[in-house]
Amino acid sequence: MAAATHPNSDNSTPRNGAQETRPSAGEIHPKHSYAPICEHGLEVPETAIELDDSPTGPNEPFRVYRTRGPEADSHVGLPPLRQDWILERGDVEAYDGRERNLADDGRGAERRGEASKEWRGEKRKPLRAQAGRRVTQMAYARAGIITKEMEFVALREHCEPEFVRSEIARGRAIIPNNINHPESEPMIIGRKFLTKINANIGNSAVTSSIDEEVSKLQWATRWGADTVMDLSTGDDIHTTREWIIRNSPVPIGTVPIYQALEKVNGVAEDLTWDIFRDTVIEQCEQGVDYMTIHAGVLLPYVPLTSQRVTGIVSRGGSIMAGWCLAHHKESFLYENFDELCEIFSHYDVAFSLGDGLRPGSLADANDTAQFAELKTIGELTKRAWEYDVQVMVEGPGHVPLNMVQANNELEQDWCHDAPFYTLGPLVTDIAPGYDHITSAIGAAHIAMGGTAMLCYVTPKEHLGLPNRDDVKTGVITYKLAAHAADVAKGHPGARAWDDAMSKARFEFRWHDQFALSLDPETAEAYHDETLPAEPAKTAHFCSMCGPKFCSMRISQDIRDTFGADLGMPGVGSPVDPEVREAAAGEQTMAKKFKEQGSDIYVEEQQ
Amino acid sequence: MAAATHPNSDNSTPRNGAQETRPSAGEIHPKHSYAPICEHGLEVPETAIELDDSPTGPNEPFRVYRTRGPEADSHVGLPPLRQDWILERGDVEAYDGRERNLADDGRGAERRGEASKEWRGEKRKPLRAQAGRRVTQMAYARAGIITKEMEFVALREHCEPEFVRSEIARGRAIIPNNINHPESEPMIIGRKFLTKINANIGNSAVTSSIDEEVSKLQWATRWGADTVMDLSTGDDIHTTREWIIRNSPVPIGTVPIYQALEKVNGVAEDLTWDIFRDTVIEQCEQGVDYMTIHAGVLLPYVPLTSQRVTGIVSRGGSIMAGWCLAHHKESFLYENFDELCEIFSHYDVAFSLGDGLRPGSLADANDTAQFAELKTIGELTKRAWEYDVQVMVEGPGHVPLNMVQANNELEQDWCHDAPFYTLGPLVTDIAPGYDHITSAIGAAHIAMGGTAMLCYVTPKEHLGLPNRDDVKTGVITYKLAAHAADVAKGHPGARAWDDAMSKARFEFRWHDQFALSLDPETAEAYHDETLPAEPAKTAHFCSMCGPKFCSMRISQDIRDTFGADLGMPGVGSPVDPEVREAAAGEQTMAKKFKEQGSDIYVEEQQ
Repeated sequence: MAAATHPNSDNSTPRNGAQETRPSAGEIHPKHSYAPICEHGLEVPETAIELDDSPTGPNEPFRVYRTRGPEADSHVGLPPLRQDWILERGDVEAYDGRERNLADDGRGAERRGEASKEWRGEKRKPLRAQAGRRVTQMAYARAGIITKEMEFVALREHCEPEFVRSEIARGRAIIPNNINHPESEPMIIGRKFLTKINANIGNSAVTSSIDEEVSKLQWATRWGADTVMDLSTGDDIHTTREWIIRNSPVPIGTVPIYQALEKVNGVAEDLTWDIFRDTVIEQCEQGVDYMTIHAGVLLPYVPLTSQRVTGIVSRGGSIMAGWCLAHHKESFLYENFDELCEIFSHYDVAFSLGDGLRPGSLADANDTAQFAELKTIGELTKRAWEYDVQVMVEGPGHVPLNMVQANNELEQDWCHDAPFYTLGPLVTDIAPGYDHITSAIGAAHIAMGGTAMLCYVTPKEHLGLPNRDDVKTGVITYKLAAHAADVAKGHPGARAWDDAMSKARFEFRWHDQFALSLDPETAEAYHDETLPAEPAKTAHFCSMCGPKFCSMRISQDIRDTFGADLGMPGVGSPVDPEVREAAAGEQTMAKKFKEQGSDIYVEEQQ
Repeated sequence: MAAATHPNSDNSTPRNGAQETRPSAGEIHPKHSYAPICEHGLEVPETAIELDDSPTGPNEPFRVYRTRGPEADSHVGLPPLRQDWILERGDVEAYDGRERNLADDGRGAERRGEASKEWRGEKRKPLRAQAGRRVTQMAYARAGIITKEMEFVALREHCEPEFVRSEIARGRAIIPNNINHPESEPMIIGRKFLTKINANIGNSAVTSSIDEEVSKLQWATRWGADTVMDLSTGDDIHTTREWIIRNSPVPIGTVPIYQALEKVNGVAEDLTWDIFRDTVIEQCEQGVDYMTIHAGVLLPYVPLTSQRVTGIVSRGGSIMAGWCLAHHKESFLYENFDELCEIFSHYDVAFSLGDGLRPGSLADANDTAQFAELKTIGELTKRAWEYDVQVMVEGPGHVPLNMVQANNELEQDWCHDAPFYTLGPLVTDIAPGYDHITSAIGAAHIAMGGTAMLCYVTPKEHLGLPNRDDVKTGVITYKLAAHAADVAKGHPGARAWDDAMSKARFEFRWHDQFALSLDPETAEAYHDETLPAEPAKTAHFCSMCGPKFCSMRISQDIRDTFGADLGMPGVGSPVDPEVREAAAGEQTMAKKFKEQGSDIYVEEQQ
C-alpha cells in the first residue's frame, strides 16, 4: 500500500492530464491527489496522500487505491474502460437483446409509456459469448490466460498477475465483471486478497427516487465501497438499475428475484421459471456483475425453519420458500440451475449463492436449516464451476461471537474454498440504531477467519431505509472492520497504513492525521470542535492534556535520551526472562503472519 | 435477566412508593418502570420493560438492572444508601480529615478564595478504619463475612451471595466502594459476572465546567455506565470531583497523579511522594472508589519504549517516566507502594493498576515494555492483597485483532486472575472519528476472552474532548460490546435479552422493539424517518419490503403449516448427516457453554 514499497512509484505519471478532466473519487481531502499506476497500457487509479516532513526527514506520499468516476456527470455515465479488452478477445458478439418491456419498470411506467426518468446516455447493444464460448474470467484462468482484468487487479493488489490467475482458476477468488458493464474497474474477491466491502442501495415500495439511488451509489463509492448491490423493489426498477450501472466504477450486484416478484405483483406463488429466466437475461444484458440466487432453499429444508425464533428473514429465501410451499414442488432455481449457469457463462455474471435460510437472530444461528442450505450451496458451487462460472457464497446474518468462526470453517470445507461473503454478522440483537457496530464486531472477526467480502450494515438496519449519511457511516464502519481483519491476517502491507497514521500522531502532524483518515472531514471537524484555530493543528499538544503537559513530549525526550541504545547507564534493563519470551513470541507471531502472507504469494506463483 | 427466570418477580413491590419520589434512571422509555427487587431490607433498582402480547399469549415484562439517582437534583446529591451498612459494622471512625486547601482547586480558586462553584450540599465528616482494622470487601470476604454490598451484588447479578464472597476473597472480582461514597450502588467487576463498562469524563486545561461534568456523569449513568472515571486536569479539580461523587450512584475512579501534577504546575519532576500521598488522602476522604496507580512504570523499563512508534501514550505513564528520568531514581509509587496499600485499606479504595506503558499504536502492541510492566503489576497485585486491598489491572490500548487474546492470557497468568480492565483495544489506527467502533471490535473480543471491565472510547478519541452526544454514543457502543461478550461467554441469562428482542421483531411489536433497545429514542427516531405514522408501528410490515410482500409473513405461514411437526407429508427432511452433525455440534457447544456457566456457580458455591 505504501509508496515506499511500491516498485512503480517513480513512473506513475497520469496519462494526458486525465486528472484534470475526471478527478478521482479519492480526492476527499486537499492532501489527496490522483496518482495512478500506469503500466502495460493500464491506468490503475491510486490516490497519493501527501505527508508533511518528520523531524527526521521527509515522508513519502502514502498511496491507496480509490476508484475513479463517481464525480462524473451522471447523465452521461462513465467511459467504458474495459470495452476494448472485451472486444479484443474476439469471443463475444453484439446482438439486439431482449425486447424492452415497460413492465420491467412496473405499472407506473406502463401507464406513462416510459420510466419516470428514462436513461438518455449512451446505449450500447448488449454483448454475449459467441456460440460455444465461455467468456468468464474463470474460463480464461483455467485456460492459463492472464486477462487485462487480472493484470489490473494485480497492480491494484500489488501482487503477481499469475497469482491472481491461479486463485481464480481454483475458484478461491472471483472478479465479478459482466462484459456488459465495461465501465467497471476490475476488483477481486478472495481471502488471499484485501478484504472487500459491499454497500446495499435501492428503492422500496415506500420510498426513494432514481436520483437518490444514483447519488447513494456515488456517495458509497466515494467513501470506498468495493461493490454495490442495487436491491430496488419499488418503481422503475429497470431504469434505476440502468442509471446505476452506467455510473458505476465498481461491480454491481442484484437479487433478480426481487424484480421478478414485482412482475407478478408481489405474489410469490405466481412466479415461474420463465419469468425469472427472462428477468435474469434482462439484467445480464444491462451489465449486472453478480446476482444473488437462492437456489439452496430446497423444499425439504423449509420445515426446518418452523421452530425458529425469527423464521426466514431473507427476502429471497422466503419468496422461494413461499413458492415451494404453495406448489409443493422443488425450487425452480434448483431445478433449472444448469440453465442458469449456461446463461451466466455467456456474460460472465458471477453467482452470489444466497443464504435464504440465514439466521435472523442469535437464537437461530448455526442451526440445521442454515447448514442444510450451506451444504447444498457447496454442491451448486461445483456445478457452476463445471460451466466456468465464478461463484461466491453468502453467509449470515446474526451469530453470537463465539459461533462466528464455525461459519468460515464449514463454508471453506463444504463450498470448496469459494469466497465467502457475509452480512455482518451482528453479534447481538439488542442495539437497533447501532447495528453497523454490532455487525462490524462480527464482520472484523469473520473476515479475520477468511471471509473475503463483507456486506455493510447501516445504522438503519431493522428500522428503515438508509439515507446518504447512513450509507457513509456504513461504508466507513466496514472499511475499518475489513482493514482490521487484513492487519490481523498479516496481509502484506496492510499495517503500513496504521503505522503511517501512528507516526503522524506521535509527531503531531494533525493535517496528515486527517488526510490519512478513512473519513478526513469528520476527523478534522471533531478536532476543531475543541481546538478550532489553525495553530492548534501545528502545535505539539492536543485537547486531551492541553499545552502544560504532554505525554508525547516526554516520549520524545526519552527517544532523545536513549536513541537507538536500549541500555541505560548505571541502570540496565533487567527485564524478566518470561517477559522477554512473551514479547519475543508476539514478535515471532507477527513475523510468522507476515511470512505466511509472503509465502502464500511465493508458493502460489510457482 | 428475564423476569421469568427471576425467583422473586412476584414479591418485588417497591417500598413506600419510592418510585414516585425518585425515579430510576432506567425510565428512558414510557414502557419502562421502576420495579426494584426488595429483599433482606435491600432495594435493588431494576427496571421492568412492559411487553405487548404475542399472538400466542402475554409476555412477562423484561427486567434489567439500572441505577437510580441520576435524575436527582444535583445540588442536593443522592441519599447515602450504604451509610448504615458501613456504620453497622462498627469498624470505622469519623474524623476531621485533611485540612482543605484551596490549592486543591488550582490557582483560580486560590485567587477567588473558593472554587468556582463550591459544593453546598451535605458535607459528612470522612470515615476511616479504626486503628488496626481493614474495612475492605476483600478483608470481609476472606474472613467469611457476606456484607450487605455482596448481598446487593448477588441480587443484582442473580447469583448466590456466597459466590460473590468467594470471588472477592480469591481476588478474581472486586466491589469498588469507598466507605466515603455511601451514595453508590454496589457493583462487581470480575470475569464470572456481567461485563462492566466505564465512561471517562473530566475537564481539561482547555475546556469544560463543573456543570458540564455533572451533566455528563448523569448522562453516562442514564445510558448504563457501570463506573465513571473523573479524569479532570483543569481548574476546580477538587470541587468538580465533590459534585461528581455526591451525585454518583456508580463507583468513581480517578488518576490521582493528574491532580498531583496540577499542584506542581504541570512540572513532572517537581512531584514528590508527599504531594502525591496528600492528594491520595484528599481523594480517599472525598470517596473515590478506585484509583489508577501507575506503579508498574519502573525506571529500567523506560528505555524499552525508546524505539516505539508512539512512545508512551499513557499520561500517567509518561509523568512517571519523566519523573524517573529527571531524578534517575526508581518510581516513588513503586517505592512507597506498601504505604499506599495501607492507606487504601483504611477506606476500601481499590487499585486500578495502571498500564502506563500500554501501546499507543498497533505497531507497539504486545512489546517488551508493555509486558515488563504487566509482570510488575502482577507482583504489586500480590502485595496489595497482603493488605486485603482490592485490585484490578488495566490493559491496552491499541492491539491488532489477532494479538488481543494474548493480553487476557498473560494478565490472568501473571496477575493471578485479578480482574482485567482494558481500554478498547482499538484494532486499527486509521479511523479517527470512529474509534468507538475500532475499539468496540477489540473490546467485545477481549471481553469474550475474560476481560471484566471495558473502558469506553468515544468518537472524539485522539481528536478532542467528548461532549454529551459522544458520551452517549460511547456508552451505548460499549454496552453492546459488553453484552455481545456476555452472550459469547454463555453468561447465564444473557441471551434472554436478544431473544426477547428477536421475538418482538418477528411479531412486529415495534413499540416493544424500541423499549427493549439499548437506545430506545434513537431506534424509534430512525424508524420514524421512513414510516412516521403510528399505524406503521402496529402494521405487520416494515420499510424494507413494504406492505406488498413480507418475509416474516411467509415464516408465519410456515409455522402455521408445520407447527411443532418437523416432518412434512410426502417430503420428509432428508438432511445430510454431516449437516445434522454440524448443527448438533453447535447446539452441544451452546449447551456446554450454558452448562459451564451454571457449573461455575454450582462448583464455586460448594
